[in-house]
Parts: sequence; structure tokens; C-alpha cells
Amino acid sequence: MVLEVADIHVTDRDGFIAAYRSAVEVVRSCPGCRSVRMTAGVEDPLRFTLLIEWDSVEAHEDNFRATERYSTWRAAIGPYFAQPPLVEHFTDVD
Amino acid sequence: MVLEVADIHVTDRDGFIAAYRSAVEVVRSCPGCRSVRMTAGVEDPLRFTLLIEWDSVEAHEDNFRATERYSTWRAAIGPYFAQPPLVEHFTDVD
Repeated sequence: MVLEVADIHVTDRDGFIAAYRSAVEVVRSCPGCRSVRMTAGVEDPLRFTLLIEWDSVEAHEDNFRATERYSTWRAAIGPYFAQPPLVEHFTDVD
Repeated sequence: MVLEVADIHVTDRDGFIAAYRSAVEVVRSCPGCRSVRMTAGVEDPLRFTLLIEWDSVEAHEDNFRATERYSTWRAAIGPYFAQPPLVEHFTDVD
């Protein structure tokens, strides 16, 4: 299991949330995706941290990033990006 | 409930993990702390994402940040920081 952490900066908080809600199912339903959690910034209302658990980095890349699911997802939320998100993977300590 | 997200860059991965393990209980046992999850970077082995759920930002600040628990915690893990961590709070969307 791997945790994808996306640090997202947007131009429009409400617009981004609506776009996320309209498109999240395309991530959640992706083979290899275990959970999706979107969180919105307190100190910075235009910052979001997206946490997605995948079976593996390969599951994320092969089943999602390389497919039309990703195009659909990015078409929905991409217009709200203030800059390209920083997206990396992490594994649990302990 | 609020999620604290700490983006931590270290100088020594194994040293940091050991220090974290030695000190995590001081966070976990803090009133208002619901869960602690440390994750280690895949793309960047010297990067960690720490996720801590608190009852509220106030619980984090009053019960932890303003107390000796924080001093103990920072004394253990601080020596491994490559730079000051970025720490902000987030709330769940949905």
C-alpha cells in the first residue's frame, strides 16, 4: 500500500471543491484505489491536501495516470490550479 | 476534527525514523490527539509526511504546542530537520 499526497494550490476554493465532487468517483472507482480523502486548508483557504491510498505506485500509474480516467479527472479540477500540484508517494512508518 | 499535515525534510532517514519512534508516544498520548501517522517518501527518501488528527486547532496548540510535550518532541526529532517543517491544518471535504 502506498499513500499519494498531493499538495494543491487553487484559484477558487468553492469552484475547486465542486469540481472535485463532480469527478472524484473516477478516482475512487479505479482498480487499485483504496481510499480518497480531500482536505481543505485552514491557514490557507486556497490550499488543499489530497490523500489517496493505492495498492502500489504501479497501480496508481498504470491504472489511473496512464488512462482516460486521469484525463477526465484533470479536465474537471485542472482549471482551478494556481500552479501544478506537487504529487509524491509515501509509505507508512511502523 | 482537524488534520495537521507536516511536510518534513530530513538529513538522515533512519536517524529520523528512530527518533520519531522514540518520541511519538508524547504526541499520541496528548489530550485532543486522535491519531498519528508518519509516512516516508518514495520519490524523495529524505521527505516525510506526518498526519495528525486533533479534536481542533486549539487542542493542538493549547495541549501540545504550548507545553513541554512539544519541547520533548522537538528535542528528539529536531536534530534531523534539513529545514523547518511546513505545518498547516486541514478539514475534510465531504
